[in-house]
Amino acid sequence: MNFKGNHILSVNQFDREAIERVFNVAHQMLPYAKRRKRTTVLEGAILGNLFFEPSTRTRVSFGTAFNLLGGEVRETTGLSNSALAKGESLYDTARVLSGYSDIIAMRHPDSGSVAEFAEGSRVPVINGGDGANEHPTQALLDLYTIQKELQDHGSSIDGMHIAMIGDLKYGRTVHSLSKLLCLFKNVRFTLISPKELNMPASIIAAIENAGHQYTITDQFEGSVDADICYQTRIQEERFPSQHEANQYRGKFRLNQQIYTKHFQSKTVIMHPLPRDSRAEANELDNDLNLNPNLAIFRQTDNGVLVRMALFALTLGVEDIVAQYDRDIHWHVNI
Amino acid sequence: MNFKGNHILSVNQFDREAIERVFNVAHQMLPYAKRRKRTTVLEGAILGNLFFEPSTRTRVSFGTAFNLLGGEVRETTGLSNSALAKGESLYDTARVLSGYSDIIAMRHPDSGSVAEFAEGSRVPVINGGDGANEHPTQALLDLYTIQKELQDHGSSIDGMHIAMIGDLKYGRTVHSLSKLLCLFKNVRFTLISPKELNMPASIIAAIENAGHQYTITDQFEGSVDADICYQTRIQEERFPSQHEANQYRGKFRLNQQIYTKHFQSKTVIMHPLPRDSRAEANELDNDLNLNPNLAIFRQTDNGVLVRMALFALTLGVEDIVAQYDRDIHWHVNI
Amino acid sequence: MNFKGNHILSVNQFDREAIERVFNVAHQMLPYAKRRKRTTVLEGAILGNLFFEPSTRTRVSFGTAFNLLGGEVRETTGLSNSALAKGESLYDTARVLSGYSDIIAMRHPDSGSVAEFAEGSRVPVINGGDGANEHPTQALLDLYTIQKELQDHGSSIDGMHIAMIGDLKYGRTVHSLSKLLCLFKNVRFTLISPKELNMPASIIAAIENAGHQYTITDQFEGSVDADICYQTRIQEERFPSQHEANQYRGKFRLNQQIYTKHFQSKTVIMHPLPRDSRAEANELDNDLNLNPNLAIFRQTDNGVLVRMALFALTLGVEDIVAQYDRDIHWHVNI
Repeated sequence: MNFKGNHILSVNQFDREAIERVFNVAHQMLPYAKRRKRTTVLEGAILGNLFFEPSTRTRVSFGTAFNLLGGEVRETTGLSNSALAKGESLYDTARVLSGYSDIIAMRHPDSGSVAEFAEGSRVPVINGGDGANEHPTQALLDLYTIQKELQDHGSSIDGMHIAMIGDLKYGRTVHSLSKLLCLFKNVRFTLISPKELNMPASIIAAIENAGHQYTITDQFEGSVDADICYQTRIQEERFPSQHEANQYRGKFRLNQQIYTKHFQSKTVIMHPLPRDSRAEANELDNDLNLNPNLAIFRQTDNGVLVRMALFALTLGVEDIVAQYDRDIHWHVNI
Repeated sequence: MNFKGNHILSVNQFDREAIERVFNVAHQMLPYAKRRKRTTVLEGAILGNLFFEPSTRTRVSFGTAFNLLGGEVRETTGLSNSALAKGESLYDTARVLSGYSDIIAMRHPDSGSVAEFAEGSRVPVINGGDGANEHPTQALLDLYTIQKELQDHGSSIDGMHIAMIGDLKYGRTVHSLSKLLCLFKNVRFTLISPKELNMPASIIAAIENAGHQYTITDQFEGSVDADICYQTRIQEERFPSQHEANQYRGKFRLNQQIYTKHFQSKTVIMHPLPRDSRAEANELDNDLNLNPNLAIFRQTDNGVLVRMALFALTLGVEDIVAQYDRDIHWHVNI
Repeated sequence: MNFKGNHILSVNQFDREAIERVFNVAHQMLPYAKRRKRTTVLEGAILGNLFFEPSTRTRVSFGTAFNLLGGEVRETTGLSNSALAKGESLYDTARVLSGYSDIIAMRHPDSGSVAEFAEGSRVPVINGGDGANEHPTQALLDLYTIQKELQDHGSSIDGMHIAMIGDLKYGRTVHSLSKLLCLFKNVRFTLISPKELNMPASIIAAIENAGHQYTITDQFEGSVDADICYQTRIQEERFPSQHEANQYRGKFRLNQQIYTKHFQSKTVIMHPLPRDSRAEANELDNDLNLNPNLAIFRQTDNGVLVRMALFALTLGVEDIVAQYDRDIHWHVNI
């Protein structure tokens, strides 16, 4: 896979070598993200951060990643008032807006819209989520987190056991993550969800084709004993009705007691965030906040590293970042 | 016309010499916009980008233009939540916000509001569109595009023939462009619109006074044979009702077949964008996308150059931009 | 009070020494705000400017202050679409977003929310207003303005006479300012408001404990003779109903004639802004705009200085700002 000058639209573009390339570059970004130093490698470059669907976390993460490489960010949020609402095609929007930046990160509520936009764009487009379809940078940051967490335990993605919990039907992140895991060896999946929210057949087929093992169940039972416990949110906005979504909220909530009962003491807890902390959902109880294996905030921190890596690779500066190092002279808490 | 430290509120401020000054500076901006190099001349300067009426294209174009000169952008979008909604006068808003930036670009839904704001501002204000009134940077980028396109054909604005098509009554851009064309010699206008959407008498009078020729018609007929075909959008938002607007949508759509029938093979096609690509409007058919004379995306690219020129002139740095040149070391697609 | 690495959440954190520290640093910021030179001391640093409640003035003032120190700004506005609406706790939002910036300025409609957010934040948080609770940077800029204005008259905060007028019950700014004034000596308060909108008992108690003198009245009477006249807006949004708010709008409007009758010729007129200039409110008449003692726009200008000072102190760069001085080469109107 050649990154330079190309779009990042789907996890399907990645092979194992490409993933390792991204992760190596991401790792090199740590000193900048931790503010031990800074770089001006992209000084003067402009990111078009186009969030036609709101997502504070993802939007700011992309913007911060670009700033940390020294670049500028021009931002657009919301759909209703844009030219799209006046009947402009995505092709036209892309042709125009791609004249205003060196690279684009884009989120849009419609499946396939980012790829359609990319057709018209004259600069690389990174998919920041297109409806129920894809969110490749989330899948990459999830996988990067798994790799790093397991590394700390002396193990690796090959041969690991992951439990995925909750809404496996509409949960875009577990689909994309599963696809990426199909590039690795001997992964064991335990898929825990209400029957109505089972993992789609196409993903199961991919898991089987990759030679992985899997178990499908609708309840926590006995010891799950996984290396990774990946909890998900009920994607209310993807259900036909709020009523239907409500039936499933809170079905598989996890707290310290349930964790102790079903998991190893070193099982890493992940979640794509936001976690719904309202009493009726409470997917991950706050009593887990003190559990050192709760990796959810390390995930979002890693998101910055992965997005920095994708920007560096796509703009072809991954090998010269350190040439533009500068000292930091302000107080850093982190 | 003295640019330094002054507001740009209306096309009426410009004489032919001023236009040529802007266009010369705009032309010097091309290497920066094409990312062949960058400049830090405005490093540390702040643009207040105040879009009290949404307009993604114009807003991002102003912001990008300022970034390309090395400056920072502080942005405000929307009207409802601002202090204006709490009864603050435009004068007060201007006095306050002009303390936060070195220059302001402003769009507002009300005619005359930008000029009123400029009265209170302590820094130069560039009008980014004030309702049905003015949008001088659009007129300048249109004219700059005409000049460049005709230059490529070995001709010039003096003596050219322009066809303006569609909603000539509410179309702010054709009014402003016509006023600027009155500074040139021997221009021929063919004004094609439904009778109810004819060019206003005041503009016709200005065209006459300038000694130009014009024809008014309500249909494509025979050979139009123009150098420039300027198509417009039905400005739905300026009509009393959606119903009335709908009567005219799609009346003068242009596609390759109609183009071939009525125009020269070198006629340049322009449009202020966004073009309405929905079936019921379809002002410029997508089959024109392959036509090399479709200049609509060159127009928006030129918008960045013209806005860079206005910033440079207004802030008095037009002659020192190149002193702050820097290399670019990232991959450039454009 | 130690600023470096700490949150600024409440005026209660400040003692007199801390205030003087802020004001000394703010004063050093004047050449940058006036564009006599610029500094790059925070180049590469990122401000997370989180305005979950809209406030154009405060938001842009924070952003500009950070830009003037050389830093970048990543901005979030509005509440409805954020993760908070999906049930995310403020703690989670803080943990995540604090990974994206070096410092955060935050406004939120709920009392106490900024302090709750700060609990989860890994970087310093500056309160930009949390509902009816606190708005410490406004209080500091008000006090800084008082000090500077009185200095010009050869007097000081100790021993001064301040008249506070209008909605003293819901007016957050007069509460915070009064608390800060309790750190000074022999201040005289004249509190003018409708009985129903009197200054709360807790603030009166603080004024008494500080050994200050005060008068409570519901009308302008005779000579008020204050050094400072602090006019306020009826805080419509804090009243149970618009109807109730309307009863009080315009009760204590000030114009040049009323000013001449009740105040000294050197009395400084202040207002937290926005002033409601609609005929039915008109708290400060436009005929005061020519009065040299109208300090309302000097207040907002001072806001930039005070916010620059807080950023510099919190990030520990207050003593090295001038090491990063750069020349300015664009035209400056101010």
